[in-house]
Amino acid sequence: MVRCESIFLVFLCLSVQVINVECMRYQPTWESLDARPIPSWYDEAKLGIFIHWGVFSVPSFSSEWFWWNWKGSPTPAVLDFMAKNYKPDFTYADFGRDFKAEFFNPSQWTEAFESSGAKYIVFVSKHHEGYTNWPSKYSFSWNSVDVGPHRDIVGELMNATRAKTSLKFGLYHSMYEWFHPLYLADKKAGFKTQDFVNQKTLPELYEIVNQYKPEVVWSDGDWEADDTYWRSKEYLAWLYNDSPVKDTVVVNDRWGKGIMCNHGGVYTCGDRFNPGVLQKHKWVNAMTIDKYSWGYRRNARLQDYLTIEELLQTFVVTVSCGGNMLMNVGPPSHGHIAPIYEERLRQMGAWLKVNGEGIYSSRPWTFQNDTQTPGVWYTKKTGSGSAVTVYAFSFAWPESGVLSLAAPQASPATVVSLLGFEGNLDYQTQTPQGLDIHVPVIPINKMPCDWIWCFKITAVTN
Amino acid sequence: MVRCESIFLVFLCLSVQVINVECMRYQPTWESLDARPIPSWYDEAKLGIFIHWGVFSVPSFSSEWFWWNWKGSPTPAVLDFMAKNYKPDFTYADFGRDFKAEFFNPSQWTEAFESSGAKYIVFVSKHHEGYTNWPSKYSFSWNSVDVGPHRDIVGELMNATRAKTSLKFGLYHSMYEWFHPLYLADKKAGFKTQDFVNQKTLPELYEIVNQYKPEVVWSDGDWEADDTYWRSKEYLAWLYNDSPVKDTVVVNDRWGKGIMCNHGGVYTCGDRFNPGVLQKHKWVNAMTIDKYSWGYRRNARLQDYLTIEELLQTFVVTVSCGGNMLMNVGPPSHGHIAPIYEERLRQMGAWLKVNGEGIYSSRPWTFQNDTQTPGVWYTKKTGSGSAVTVYAFSFAWPESGVLSLAAPQASPATVVSLLGFEGNLDYQTQTPQGLDIHVPVIPINKMPCDWIWCFKITAVTN
Amino acid sequence: MVRCESIFLVFLCLSVQVINVECMRYQPTWESLDARPIPSWYDEAKLGIFIHWGVFSVPSFSSEWFWWNWKGSPTPAVLDFMAKNYKPDFTYADFGRDFKAEFFNPSQWTEAFESSGAKYIVFVSKHHEGYTNWPSKYSFSWNSVDVGPHRDIVGELMNATRAKTSLKFGLYHSMYEWFHPLYLADKKAGFKTQDFVNQKTLPELYEIVNQYKPEVVWSDGDWEADDTYWRSKEYLAWLYNDSPVKDTVVVNDRWGKGIMCNHGGVYTCGDRFNPGVLQKHKWVNAMTIDKYSWGYRRNARLQDYLTIEELLQTFVVTVSCGGNMLMNVGPPSHGHIAPIYEERLRQMGAWLKVNGEGIYSSRPWTFQNDTQTPGVWYTKKTGSGSAVTVYAFSFAWPESGVLSLAAPQASPATVVSLLGFEGNLDYQTQTPQGLDIHVPVIPINKMPCDWIWCFKITAVTN
Amino acid sequence: MVRCESIFLVFLCLSVQVINVECMRYQPTWESLDARPIPSWYDEAKLGIFIHWGVFSVPSFSSEWFWWNWKGSPTPAVLDFMAKNYKPDFTYADFGRDFKAEFFNPSQWTEAFESSGAKYIVFVSKHHEGYTNWPSKYSFSWNSVDVGPHRDIVGELMNATRAKTSLKFGLYHSMYEWFHPLYLADKKAGFKTQDFVNQKTLPELYEIVNQYKPEVVWSDGDWEADDTYWRSKEYLAWLYNDSPVKDTVVVNDRWGKGIMCNHGGVYTCGDRFNPGVLQKHKWVNAMTIDKYSWGYRRNARLQDYLTIEELLQTFVVTVSCGGNMLMNVGPPSHGHIAPIYEERLRQMGAWLKVNGEGIYSSRPWTFQNDTQTPGVWYTKKTGSGSAVTVYAFSFAWPESGVLSLAAPQASPATVVSLLGFEGNLDYQTQTPQGLDIHVPVIPINKMPCDWIWCFKITAVTN
Repeated sequence: MVRCESIFLVFLCLSVQVINVECMRYQPTWESLDARPIPSWYDEAKLGIFIHWGVFSVPSFSSEWFWWNWKGSPTPAVLDFMAKNYKPDFTYADFGRDFKAEFFNPSQWTEAFESSGAKYIVFVSKHHEGYTNWPSKYSFSWNSVDVGPHRDIVGELMNATRAKTSLKFGLYHSMYEWFHPLYLADKKAGFKTQDFVNQKTLPELYEIVNQYKPEVVWSDGDWEADDTYWRSKEYLAWLYNDSPVKDTVVVNDRWGKGIMCNHGGVYTCGDRFNPGVLQKHKWVNAMTIDKYSWGYRRNARLQDYLTIEELLQTFVVTVSCGGNMLMNVGPPSHGHIAPIYEERLRQMGAWLKVNGEGIYSSRPWTFQNDTQTPGVWYTKKTGSGSAVTVYAFSFAWPESGVLSLAAPQASPATVVSLLGFEGNLDYQTQTPQGLDIHVPVIPINKMPCDWIWCFKITAVTN
Repeated sequence: MVRCESIFLVFLCLSVQVINVECMRYQPTWESLDARPIPSWYDEAKLGIFIHWGVFSVPSFSSEWFWWNWKGSPTPAVLDFMAKNYKPDFTYADFGRDFKAEFFNPSQWTEAFESSGAKYIVFVSKHHEGYTNWPSKYSFSWNSVDVGPHRDIVGELMNATRAKTSLKFGLYHSMYEWFHPLYLADKKAGFKTQDFVNQKTLPELYEIVNQYKPEVVWSDGDWEADDTYWRSKEYLAWLYNDSPVKDTVVVNDRWGKGIMCNHGGVYTCGDRFNPGVLQKHKWVNAMTIDKYSWGYRRNARLQDYLTIEELLQTFVVTVSCGGNMLMNVGPPSHGHIAPIYEERLRQMGAWLKVNGEGIYSSRPWTFQNDTQTPGVWYTKKTGSGSAVTVYAFSFAWPESGVLSLAAPQASPATVVSLLGFEGNLDYQTQTPQGLDIHVPVIPINKMPCDWIWCFKITAVTN
Repeated sequence: MVRCESIFLVFLCLSVQVINVECMRYQPTWESLDARPIPSWYDEAKLGIFIHWGVFSVPSFSSEWFWWNWKGSPTPAVLDFMAKNYKPDFTYADFGRDFKAEFFNPSQWTEAFESSGAKYIVFVSKHHEGYTNWPSKYSFSWNSVDVGPHRDIVGELMNATRAKTSLKFGLYHSMYEWFHPLYLADKKAGFKTQDFVNQKTLPELYEIVNQYKPEVVWSDGDWEADDTYWRSKEYLAWLYNDSPVKDTVVVNDRWGKGIMCNHGGVYTCGDRFNPGVLQKHKWVNAMTIDKYSWGYRRNARLQDYLTIEELLQTFVVTVSCGGNMLMNVGPPSHGHIAPIYEERLRQMGAWLKVNGEGIYSSRPWTFQNDTQTPGVWYTKKTGSGSAVTVYAFSFAWPESGVLSLAAPQASPATVVSLLGFEGNLDYQTQTPQGLDIHVPVIPINKMPCDWIWCFKITAVTN
Repeated sequence: MVRCESIFLVFLCLSVQVINVECMRYQPTWESLDARPIPSWYDEAKLGIFIHWGVFSVPSFSSEWFWWNWKGSPTPAVLDFMAKNYKPDFTYADFGRDFKAEFFNPSQWTEAFESSGAKYIVFVSKHHEGYTNWPSKYSFSWNSVDVGPHRDIVGELMNATRAKTSLKFGLYHSMYEWFHPLYLADKKAGFKTQDFVNQKTLPELYEIVNQYKPEVVWSDGDWEADDTYWRSKEYLAWLYNDSPVKDTVVVNDRWGKGIMCNHGGVYTCGDRFNPGVLQKHKWVNAMTIDKYSWGYRRNARLQDYLTIEELLQTFVVTVSCGGNMLMNVGPPSHGHIAPIYEERLRQMGAWLKVNGEGIYSSRPWTFQNDTQTPGVWYTKKTGSGSAVTVYAFSFAWPESGVLSLAAPQASPATVVSLLGFEGNLDYQTQTPQGLDIHVPVIPINKMPCDWIWCFKITAVTN
């Protein structure tokens, strides 16, 4: 971004539209691109739903890295699965036809996603396998209209999202493709050729933005080559300056080797990133309900799925430390979301209905977790004036009837309550700092929720 | 059974083994067959797991009656499903090859079944489609070894059940087959010919008992023809007199038109039978976790599955009224049980670990449910001497801190407790009868379980 | 057959129809059954078309014995084919669904068969695999309506044959089935049990005759058990006495171990039986255009098919020695007959159009082949009076311009001609016997046919 | 080609290598490109084999234009075929997996091709469907290694051709692809954009030449856009100047709208082009054995295939008029060539073994066919000195024993013979011109061949 630094220019910017546009344009440099503020809706949203669906959902075994685990860096489990269940020369592309999506009902999906309390979704438009879930001009015969479902999955999901929900619609896109011959050729050439970027990655990135106007562009698969190879900075400059989503789009940080956690929009810093301490830059914890896979695994056991308690703990820690959580759902190849996923989504939504006040639009507080009582994490909200309300999320129900907190400093105006429970709670100020909340014994049928309770402490002085 | 009625005969029975055996043989009459006591293990068990798996698990849509709903009495939903997803002349038999069972791991199944607290399983050896889940001599090319999984599913499950668990192993078997031409021919002949029975149903029934020695033979599909056509009485006489499971086998009541709920072993009286009042004859509530289907439905939604609360309420009512519950699981065609099912199984098991004392080997009490507090159901156990302990299962946690029960009559020796919670509870005798139990306020983290609580009341006088 | 031995009975037989029928009934003994004359249409016909089609046409590799060569007595070629092209546990029954018959046009078939000059066809209703090409009541889910084509192939072919051609319609049927469990059980029991015969083979044999009224019942697969096990004699007695085809049906000799070439109707004495000398009993040379298989082989090479010269030589030798030829066509699984077969059929027909006079309704002559000139074979016809015409078929065009024959003894009335060529040929009587025919030099465009020439010699004295 | 026209330049060309190379290079203009002489092997060869194989060989119905006839310009036959045999949303790409090629044996192919007497083959590397029969870098997942056969078909065939035969190896390549989205986009833009050419057609054309070094590059699918769009001239300049086959490669004339029959190498002027009169430019008659299709049709009837007489007549007329014949074979999807094709190939070879002298390396004569006797066509050869031998191919065997020819002018040295027949034939000179050949009556077993006879007339004076 070339900043309008002199008063004279500011004047021009305000008064002359043409000059304004020109002078405010982002430049294809990280300095300029990094200066763009992340659109505010994103931080307020806190929870998004990630969806991994593709040809990998057909074998639906091992993980969405099935192809790689079979042919790239073979694992015994996948080799054995193929040897037992397929003819010897079966290929990954042969799976395409069985991606049938016969039960794919985008409205059912978005209803379930919204029921979780999430505010946006990020759908895998194309994973490392290269198969596009939209009829890309750049992926003839290896896309969801040409082979398999015979539907524009991205388009249908976008429509359902926008027509039926208030969710924002985002897209994941993998830059590299494990086995694309043009990519392999570029790689072999030390990434000095750019055929793959010019003919595949970039055209696709423009195509999905122009066609589907996603409010999140979540890039991935960037790590083998640098941002110059990928021409990421130029793309982002276009995205920020001229794309149809320039004002609202949020991107992540996977735009080339060495970029992740350093440049771009929201920092991902790796999968399931959850540092447990406050981060300087807006970040996101992209994680999975199935501990072991982003794609649906037909043979996943109950124990492989995070319990709602585990999900909520992860979520609360993430939000306390300034992150969003992007919680992944992997639908089966037939397209009907498995009930165990639906259950987790609705449990999350039930919890957020009670406790959302302390989550949505909250900000990290001075303290992230309590030093006196483990398993207590904080968020804050600043009201009109500068009154600060702190939300203390307790993973456990206080054994002793007292929740002792070292961090909050009460003021005379401080009122303590339990979200979802009528009335205020007694408390006692500790010396020199801290607070003992008197937690009543509540019979199970009166409890506001079953997992993780949120104590609201108004008018703290710190 | 020819009863040894005269003293002289009894004498002979006791003293001469050969004569005894002969005189005690069951006769192929309902009078004789009905006189056989149901082996005691069955009533003690209370909970069994039913498993529906077959070619219907391939379309996995609508229900295990898919074929019938398509070709027998066509429903729009199934016709539409076929029209959209298959070529015009696709047949049901064509589905056979796709029954792959690639993840079928019988030990995983039986571990999950046992984890539910169930004491036996009943596996569908053959449903109305006629496809046998074992390599039957009487179902060439339409069985699980010849086409599809290429495994003896019944045999593998039997082995896993007996090697790894203490579950008893039972088999479901459908007498009729919707579309078997020999059955249709017999039917057309007013069931005056018996080609189907002689060449298919009966040979199979002998085959599964001789080969797999099931401790439950659950017959079904009997309703279009009477027991004479099916030759049921002769079969049962053999089963009780000479079969390898004659001492332990439990059968049901589906042995011909008009027989159900009137003759045979355990009464089923229809699917999901749950009368809510005490029954004179031992009965079973065969029901499903998926409200709408016994076979797995790929497109079932969360709301289609009974919640654990609903399952437990059904179970408690069933046991109170003298029934067993046979809870159905429908595995997908790939053979890995869906997590939502596994979750229900394990939730049931967790509950039974706390409350099993009031369930297993219990007997119906004088009263089945309480008249004063709705949602309270009873079982009883008679200890040494004749001291009677009553178990009151309350669906709701008492709002008022007092559980008022009209039925139990306390004695001076009566002690009241909550299963899973340490210590005894105060109570007050009502006049002229009944009991007020003082229920303490227990914080959520101290609760013995999350759903349906069992109050144990010893030494009642009624 | 109970013969009407007394004059009195014969008198009754002639005068009273009812009594006649009764006294003439065939008995289930070979003595009686063998006494039945073969209906005359059969010997007059000389050429029939055999058709092998079934699930073996799906792998369409090795031969119609594919299943046996894979699982019964494994051959490396078939094992290798399966290992390379199918998943490890693929079964033969799994092939069923791919028997699609999408181009099966029975009228096209019968037009092609009739064009060959054949007078009847014999279609494989069921081969050793057990799959029935009609919707048999005794082969549920393993027949052409339940799985694969979803059509009554036998019925459609019968209708086309009778509606559009003057061909007679016959059926082949295999008694045994390699892998039918009931057959294997009977076999294990030393054929002392007859479950398979009673429940499968016999019901089917009655079913096809009652339903399709075939004029040939060609039995096969009999050789492992004797005729008592198969109950063949009883079946034949029914076929001859009471079946809807009792007056016209022709059967073969494969009715039990030791029966072939000894009892029954037409003798087959093995596949491709062509003894080269006159046989006492009417016989048939069942042979194949593809030298190596009855079922279609997708990978057959041109050299694997008999040339038209080879076919005609075989045919002429067969007819000379009193046999019929049953020439086999193996259609592909899609049902459109391969052009190479169609070519052979039409070439045969073109030849018979010229030379049929010496073939149809001919009888073996005193001599079958000539001793002086090799490659010359004879048939004869007896005209009104007792004038005998001899037909001499010469495989080669006479090198020297003279065809010297040792066998025919000319009379003064003898006229010699070449079928299809205008005018008579000069000849010279040899001493003491024989004939030198002067064969003119005919330019290629005047030749009556391209292969095997038939010289007609009237009024021979021997 | 910039010709070195001045003496000075010639001098430079000879003496300075660098300048020489530069001045002799073909320029990307038709003037220059057209000046390149067609390598001589091509005209000498006369007969080539064309092979159409691809995904269209899977439905194997209608023709290789199946996709177009289904989705581009739908025909009832194809719509009906799809409606009957596939599920409603089946796509063309879905066929890919069934292109199994399990019997593809390249050595068997090339042996059969060579047996026909052909001297080169042209294999369809990619048809209008866009599926590449080699693992193209530019057709990820839509090529024969990624989906279907899982083999480099072009590579294997090239190896077999070069290792086992003396055939030259050529490749067909379609410039356009009916449904490639980049092509459709370029087309929509009035061919002002060239994304498809730059990313698909041209890279592929370079790839196949560099990788497989074909001696024929047979272009097709050019007609919708001009040569500028296709960048054909630049490509040909490279092919002639710098490619690994620059000295031997032969191309055709399908390089853009309006180019066919006007520019390029060999002229094709349309499919099955056979003008019947002498052409100024070297041309080729690309034609099919199956009259109606280039791709294999499973339901083709015998009458749909050209007879060997028809093939030979077409061939002789073609060669007489200066053309080559490129005779097409369409293998089934399993890869084993159908016997009817093999038969035609071997019949052609048998004929050429006798008559090849008048075909190979022959040149058109002054007269192409005779005016006196219809069905007589000529070729010529000029021996050492300038003695001209004329070959007269007669479609019919002379009815009258005399073949009267108006065209050849005999000299005293003229000798007449019949190829394959020993000895010379008598002849009589007609006045003023022409020749009566006395054709002896030859018995069928002495005929040199069965169809089309070649009379050799040496030392003609015209």
